[in-house]
Amino acid sequence: MGRRNRRMKEPASSALEQLPVRQLKNPFPPIEVMTPEALEAVHDGSMRLLEQTGLQIVNDRARELMVAKGATIDKSSGYVCMERGMVMELISKVPSEFTLHARNAVYNSVYGGNHINFATVASPPNASDLDYGRRSGNFEDYCRFLKLGQTFNVISLFSGYPVEPTDLPAHTRHLDAYLAFATLTEKPWHCYSLGNGKVEDALEMIKIARQIDDEQLKSEPSITTVVNTNSPLKVDQPMLDGLMLMAEYRQPVVVTPFTLAGAMCPVTLGGALAQQNAEALGVIAITQMVNPGSPAMYGGFTSNVDMKTGAPAFGTPEYARAVLAGGQLARKYGIPYRTSNVNASNAPDAQSAWESEMSLWSAVMAHGNLVKHSGGWLEGGLCASFEKFILDMEMVQMMTETLKPIEVTEEDLALDAIKEVGAGGHHFGTSHTMSRYKDAFYKPIVSDWSNFETWQETGEKTAAQRANTLFKSVLDQYEKPNIDPAVEEALHAYVDRRRPEIKVGW
Amino acid sequence: MGRRNRRMKEPASSALEQLPVRQLKNPFPPIEVMTPEALEAVHDGSMRLLEQTGLQIVNDRARELMVAKGATIDKSSGYVCMERGMVMELISKVPSEFTLHARNAVYNSVYGGNHINFATVASPPNASDLDYGRRSGNFEDYCRFLKLGQTFNVISLFSGYPVEPTDLPAHTRHLDAYLAFATLTEKPWHCYSLGNGKVEDALEMIKIARQIDDEQLKSEPSITTVVNTNSPLKVDQPMLDGLMLMAEYRQPVVVTPFTLAGAMCPVTLGGALAQQNAEALGVIAITQMVNPGSPAMYGGFTSNVDMKTGAPAFGTPEYARAVLAGGQLARKYGIPYRTSNVNASNAPDAQSAWESEMSLWSAVMAHGNLVKHSGGWLEGGLCASFEKFILDMEMVQMMTETLKPIEVTEEDLALDAIKEVGAGGHHFGTSHTMSRYKDAFYKPIVSDWSNFETWQETGEKTAAQRANTLFKSVLDQYEKPNIDPAVEEALHAYVDRRRPEIKVGW
Repeated sequence: MGRRNRRMKEPASSALEQLPVRQLKNPFPPIEVMTPEALEAVHDGSMRLLEQTGLQIVNDRARELMVAKGATIDKSSGYVCMERGMVMELISKVPSEFTLHARNAVYNSVYGGNHINFATVASPPNASDLDYGRRSGNFEDYCRFLKLGQTFNVISLFSGYPVEPTDLPAHTRHLDAYLAFATLTEKPWHCYSLGNGKVEDALEMIKIARQIDDEQLKSEPSITTVVNTNSPLKVDQPMLDGLMLMAEYRQPVVVTPFTLAGAMCPVTLGGALAQQNAEALGVIAITQMVNPGSPAMYGGFTSNVDMKTGAPAFGTPEYARAVLAGGQLARKYGIPYRTSNVNASNAPDAQSAWESEMSLWSAVMAHGNLVKHSGGWLEGGLCASFEKFILDMEMVQMMTETLKPIEVTEEDLALDAIKEVGAGGHHFGTSHTMSRYKDAFYKPIVSDWSNFETWQETGEKTAAQRANTLFKSVLDQYEKPNIDPAVEEALHAYVDRRRPEIKVGW
Repeated sequence: MGRRNRRMKEPASSALEQLPVRQLKNPFPPIEVMTPEALEAVHDGSMRLLEQTGLQIVNDRARELMVAKGATIDKSSGYVCMERGMVMELISKVPSEFTLHARNAVYNSVYGGNHINFATVASPPNASDLDYGRRSGNFEDYCRFLKLGQTFNVISLFSGYPVEPTDLPAHTRHLDAYLAFATLTEKPWHCYSLGNGKVEDALEMIKIARQIDDEQLKSEPSITTVVNTNSPLKVDQPMLDGLMLMAEYRQPVVVTPFTLAGAMCPVTLGGALAQQNAEALGVIAITQMVNPGSPAMYGGFTSNVDMKTGAPAFGTPEYARAVLAGGQLARKYGIPYRTSNVNASNAPDAQSAWESEMSLWSAVMAHGNLVKHSGGWLEGGLCASFEKFILDMEMVQMMTETLKPIEVTEEDLALDAIKEVGAGGHHFGTSHTMSRYKDAFYKPIVSDWSNFETWQETGEKTAAQRANTLFKSVLDQYEKPNIDPAVEEALHAYVDRRRPEIKVGW
């Protein structure tokens, strides 16, 4: 499993017996859903798109930089075109692996190769639980998701606001959100690449939280951002501002085209992937124009829409195949790969689980390095569900435990124990069993294996209802992680100073 | 996909738009969870078990046959021991692939290689739906599951009674059950290997239903049975009687040890697999003593128990790994592989879905050839759920659609359409989309991708509640498949003749 020896986190209480903090790896070869020829066809198609159609770059500074580095402007469309040689040269400088540094080094984690990292849900405008239903995102729910994400060891980072705290003023919301990240959690977090200001504040606060200077920040990636293309083919001004600033500071930019087949890109997976690839590589190339060797990730988010209604669908067969194909593309270029744990269900029900499992298996077997939205995503990303967060923790934990080759020593074979028990006996009490049973098997957090009668007597609770009980007990027992009081004071001072400086609408 | 050109079944009604009948294959290499060394260690361990410990064979005829073929009796235990050379020689005669013949040849299907076939749930003593809750298995529910299994194209066979019709007299129940199989469905079915009588009746009725004689039956496998070992190490009298009769008629015997790690076998997966392998190969060897070249399948059912309560667990990480390992073993011996779609949930909720998905992904990526219990299994096999049947049909259909390599032609790339749509446009109305959208994506049968508001307005139904509606509409629209009236009459006549001949307790 390639686990590193990290300090084992003690479970928050007897209520939650979970897996330890560890750096996960997938020891199995990836599933390849495209032949080498099909992979090459997608690559070639995407290069032709970049050469002959180009991207609409809505950012003067980025356009100037791209032209200075050899791109050309298509006269009729105004789009920026890049020759494939130039693109390949630029993206060859992206590190194939980087370590993301956390405030607590226990949570440093590696991105690239066959390493896997799971992140909480990011960016829904709504939150829900079974007690109070669905509501607009708010800072209280935001902080509760941070506490859950800090508590569960299988979560490596926060790759966005788990829910948008819409009750806070939009122009200073990021200060409160970052302060909560930096104090309620010890894991790496994310800033939204929406203009320079929000990124600058994030970089300053990361430096304070980690007690590092600019030079150390540049050599130790400490914060991520996602740059979504405005598919098809468009890249917006504020995203590019953020991207360029992040690249200057050598912080990882996750470039993710939002390519729903049949809507923002062709209805065929080959065409959808060619467009995904053109947009991802075209934008990743900009990071390398700014700062060669700056870390970046290849984001795959291709799914399909319901062709009857236009509604986005997730965790579908087409989604799973696109995820596997995206892994092949990212490996071809040696760029770490971002994927997701997604579903389109409106409730934490069976559908939410099977769509999540389709996402998780394909993410892991694609050798995804970052699996975003791994805790709490519902409704195609429009809602962060507390119950779904718990169900996801079970599914993710199970996935990670599945990634263990079976070792077979002579002691494992237990031939003597089998002989001793004999025909018709049982192994419950053998010394072989007694010395191993405590850690022999994965222990679930919310799965119920009791028999029907016991289940009936205890209220016939579904997995979602049990998750409702569990998320509240985990929150009750949450303890704020240690932080140097001087650091916390400095973070507050930064926020207090910045808040009045930021104008509404800035 | 290696699909054969079969007659496309028209959907029963507009209510059910499903995938066509087809012979599925997994085009991707299997996931290997054991190194070649670990695989060899399990093999060697299992051979030492057969040589040095042996199996308790509770059947005089089988014991005599085994000794006649070179097995020895351990003096102290009375167990039957077999040398590895003998076992390997015998199992080398098992066909690596066979075709199971159905009453309607559209449903003939291939077992072996990377072919996949899904079967309904088999053998629960209870049935349930959301309307009437859980009840003892009865013939009416039995027939309803047969109708569902006949209707859904993704189901290739009935590998046991979908629910035990406990309201019928036990001694003649099999006659009614077989008659229903042979008339309400056209797909291959299963007889319980519980003594010669029940197998003889099955063989006779299959011959009538398929209008074939003994010779054709022997050259065209037409019915399956499962022989479970009474793990650990014990094989019971009636199972062996049935096995020997099936082998005489060259009908496929699925040999499945019931090895729950920590209970019926060692707590270590290596030991559990060694015991599974010894029991499976030891019993498969008997089929080849009876009739060399008779078809058999290697059944893997190793899972773990909850070490706190002893309750069986399914769809766990240990289960998934054992399934993948079982595939490696079956491939090593060139024997078709049987696995399952299982879960331990008491309700058709999220847990039932994630445990099923863990089972399905591992079954398919293990190159399982028969996936038993693929429609309706709940409660670790103690209940057949009508809603779970529908949820399973969605999960299985999605799994099959995932097993498609992505093809990338120049038309698929759609570079012109991408250029034509341009930045910020959409692909809904392009000619590229319009000519392809109808069949571009998998169409779900019970997944709901509507937005939250629409979902709320339509009653906030969970997947299980939608499945409840769907299973009833499918049953309402079921039409009994065509059958030659003379054949049906002959089947009834056989049952009418046999019923009074069978004594209670026989």
